[in-house]
Amino acid sequence: MEYRFATHMTTITGNAIREIFKLVGNPEIISFAGGMPSAESFAKHEIADIYKELLDEKGESLLQYGATDGYYPLKVAMVPFLADKGVTATEDGMMIVSGSQQSIDLMCRAFIEPGDVVLVERPTYLAVLHILATHQAKPVGVEMQDDGVDLADLEEKMRAHRPKILYLVPTFQNPTGRTMSLEKRKAVVALAKKYGVVIIEDDPYRDLRYRGEALPAIHSFDDGAHVVYSTSVSKIISPGMRVGVVVAPPEILRKLNIAKQAVDVHTNLPAQAVIAEVLNRGIVEKRLPAVLEEYKVRMHAMLEALGKYFPQEVKCTQPDGGLFIWLELPEGIDTTAIFPQAVERNVAYVPGAPFFCDGTGQNTMRLNFSASNIERIDRGMAALGGLIGELV
Amino acid sequence: MEYRFATHMTTITGNAIREIFKLVGNPEIISFAGGMPSAESFAKHEIADIYKELLDEKGESLLQYGATDGYYPLKVAMVPFLADKGVTATEDGMMIVSGSQQSIDLMCRAFIEPGDVVLVERPTYLAVLHILATHQAKPVGVEMQDDGVDLADLEEKMRAHRPKILYLVPTFQNPTGRTMSLEKRKAVVALAKKYGVVIIEDDPYRDLRYRGEALPAIHSFDDGAHVVYSTSVSKIISPGMRVGVVVAPPEILRKLNIAKQAVDVHTNLPAQAVIAEVLNRGIVEKRLPAVLEEYKVRMHAMLEALGKYFPQEVKCTQPDGGLFIWLELPEGIDTTAIFPQAVERNVAYVPGAPFFCDGTGQNTMRLNFSASNIERIDRGMAALGGLIGELV
Repeated sequence: MEYRFATHMTTITGNAIREIFKLVGNPEIISFAGGMPSAESFAKHEIADIYKELLDEKGESLLQYGATDGYYPLKVAMVPFLADKGVTATEDGMMIVSGSQQSIDLMCRAFIEPGDVVLVERPTYLAVLHILATHQAKPVGVEMQDDGVDLADLEEKMRAHRPKILYLVPTFQNPTGRTMSLEKRKAVVALAKKYGVVIIEDDPYRDLRYRGEALPAIHSFDDGAHVVYSTSVSKIISPGMRVGVVVAPPEILRKLNIAKQAVDVHTNLPAQAVIAEVLNRGIVEKRLPAVLEEYKVRMHAMLEALGKYFPQEVKCTQPDGGLFIWLELPEGIDTTAIFPQAVERNVAYVPGAPFFCDGTGQNTMRLNFSASNIERIDRGMAALGGLIGELV
Repeated sequence: MEYRFATHMTTITGNAIREIFKLVGNPEIISFAGGMPSAESFAKHEIADIYKELLDEKGESLLQYGATDGYYPLKVAMVPFLADKGVTATEDGMMIVSGSQQSIDLMCRAFIEPGDVVLVERPTYLAVLHILATHQAKPVGVEMQDDGVDLADLEEKMRAHRPKILYLVPTFQNPTGRTMSLEKRKAVVALAKKYGVVIIEDDPYRDLRYRGEALPAIHSFDDGAHVVYSTSVSKIISPGMRVGVVVAPPEILRKLNIAKQAVDVHTNLPAQAVIAEVLNRGIVEKRLPAVLEEYKVRMHAMLEALGKYFPQEVKCTQPDGGLFIWLELPEGIDTTAIFPQAVERNVAYVPGAPFFCDGTGQNTMRLNFSASNIERIDRGMAALGGLIGELV
């Protein structure tokens, strides 16, 4: 039978990273391709105990259907969790989502009609480009500098394209690791107001800071109308539990709720209750410093290996936190084309092109340092640097 | 700020049932409005123990990101679970979803462009009408008889509308409780082939049978190309865990996977692992008979109360299983209009109109019997029957 798929779905391929994950299942391959937190960082026994305790005690309600906007005790626990990030929100001003990425999909459902423009950083989180494609939004890239988007280019593109949404990952951006400066955080809100654009501030990495002072969320400079703030506990508690939170103006929140009713009714309820307890019992505060110390060591090991094994022509970012380092190779080296050669040498990364909305970036790549220990980082980087050295 | 929501989202209101849930939070109100399994049916201690055991043992992998198509051991456990229903599927022929309802949303993402026709039963599951609205699909209702859709009307509408999808709940349908006959199950597949339509067979209730013999799934009469089968463990293990499964032809499955990557990356991983163990350890088989016995008693109590307290002009379905009884009141009684009067008498139901895609059904209502004990069923039905008696 010839299926009559929606026209735009006939050309969309899978998320590039998730396809690569399948390739690098082989444990001999040192993978810098993921965006996963270190599995040793999970508080698995505490989480196991909390699941048991909560289900034994109130399994009747936790195994039953729940509210679309989220489990109330988790919303209560999210208030101080968000306040720490400079995000003021009441229980009624947020919705629990099935991972921070779901916020972006729900925002597209609420706002996007085919052809609507969404401004994104260039490069940006590739899953967002995938989401935009499924909604037939038109992504337009805004140039980036080391301290975040180029404001002149941003204003020019707001004026020219009248975008509905500006999508930003201002802190330890995926894929570059860059952080937007304080001045630019204020400036993007002012531009959003001037041009009537809603900003999605996607902020899943901000608790992973290894040096320098935390900056307030873009949301803190808003008047309550222009910034939708989304974050998750995937990087500090567990990504497999798929729990995030979105803070939005009431009118937008109502649309997100209507959209979520259609998507999955509500987020897994036992997981919501467990996350509430993990936050309330201070388990993150207790464990995170050691995890950050280890990630910091891994990031430095990778930066050091870059200096040691890679040709000088390769440029890299110098993040203050997060999970990623971004490489720019000399023009002419296509990181997608050489990927099989890297895998042959037992090392994997993510080619940079899928992070660009305009088909460029062939000479870039994203490296993750959090999921490998320093011995494997050194070994993998030696192999990768060797390969690139031969090509330069 | 005036938000530029997508045009079609400006007119969609929330799912009627979820709005009613908010109204009937008061425990004094006897609610026949939900579609919830009985909370006492949950194997909460077994589930608590399994969560603890699995997370203690392999929390590193269960708290990490997982595959979009699902946790492999759950797929393995789903093979015999599906075979019991007459659905032959390999691990590669299915995808785990965040509740059976997600299958329908993903199917819409894969197939629907604005204005595309989807045939539904008349009445049909109201959440599906909500999903179709968010995708701007055009639902067209097919007349129902006591043994399922009217085949002549179905063929007529397939011919006239060239629908992409036919959505069916053939067993203990929501909202009517009706079951499609064996002959019609075969016939709808033949019509789907003839007119190039994909059938979604949504089958979450089939394990809740109180009398008669189980019928094979529509999927069992397919040649592997025309039927997408979706079910969940919500009614027999836990709805709050949001775990379902969809079986589809490979080409469709690829599109569903691409769509799910955008929606929620993957379904909550600890929940998937726990459901696999609940299935593997035979906990459902051990507990379900007693649950079914109780539901059967409740259904009979409700049918008996209908005879005792309701005027003879009220017609009702006589289901063989499931969670619902469907009432048709005399023309002129608007069940939405009288809903506040029912709530005043401490009883709630779901007005029938939202289950119709064509704005009709004002004189119908759906009653759930599984969530109330027989004492409350008798008391609530006396109150509701009294109200309707006054109006007839």
